[in-house]
Amino acid sequence: MAERTGPFWDGVEGRAPKPRAAQTLGLEVVAVDPEAGTIELSFEAVEDWTNPAGNVLGAFVAAMLYDVVGPALLATLEPDEFQSTLELGVHFLRPVRPGRLTGRGRVAHRRGDLAHLEGSLHDPDGATVATATATARVIPLAEARDAV
Amino acid sequence: MAERTGPFWDGVEGRAPKPRAAQTLGLEVVAVDPEAGTIELSFEAVEDWTNPAGNVLGAFVAAMLYDVVGPALLATLEPDEFQSTLELGVHFLRPVRPGRLTGRGRVAHRRGDLAHLEGSLHDPDGATVATATATARVIPLAEARDAV
Repeated sequence: MAERTGPFWDGVEGRAPKPRAAQTLGLEVVAVDPEAGTIELSFEAVEDWTNPAGNVLGAFVAAMLYDVVGPALLATLEPDEFQSTLELGVHFLRPVRPGRLTGRGRVAHRRGDLAHLEGSLHDPDGATVATATATARVIPLAEARDAV
Repeated sequence: MAERTGPFWDGVEGRAPKPRAAQTLGLEVVAVDPEAGTIELSFEAVEDWTNPAGNVLGAFVAAMLYDVVGPALLATLEPDEFQSTLELGVHFLRPVRPGRLTGRGRVAHRRGDLAHLEGSLHDPDGATVATATATARVIPLAEARDAV
């Protein structure tokens, strides 16, 4: 396979620092299949994200899922492209405790510059704790600063 | 007005520590009107939440909006009640820079234990950077540990 470059692969392969937001979420890329449009990542949910009941606040569950679906698309793009998530919908299924979580993302459909993305988040027992769908637009990397 | 107690008011009025997730998001309650079901909060978006373009990753925009809509409902509840957000939908409208952001939340409709919530997030110029809707359930406070 030809060497892949661009913002996603440079970060994954250590040629660029990991984005600060990804570091904050404890994100690690576990496996990626750009041809299939699928990705698996892990996150480290910390005590600083918990509510008074000791569960990870859904705020951070949503944050992790945003950073599941975006990378699924990003991994499929050209080096001079980037992606902009236009909307994200999250369903919260089970309480989440701090610790390692697994995220699985997928480009479900792409037509032109618009993509429909799906993701899920799983606890160490394999239970699905939350699911997400998103709509994203492929944009020129040079426009990333002005994109949502 | 009678003294209000419970997890929301105890945190707002300093009788209980602020939830760790709220601290992490730099959340401050600016104004709350439980009768109207409205709330205004501020957040401090930090560099640790940014993408390589220097914008706040939408992950944390979604996280802030989760903690806008939930408190709007929480402020209206009895001391022995809590709320569980079942689903959250976020639309991302404008790029977001680190700094202080204002969140406005509202209980748009409540029927029995289900509530429909709305929220928006605004930059220092007053521009709306993102909007959210959510469905939440009112639950007994004693069940918070097992709720999403």
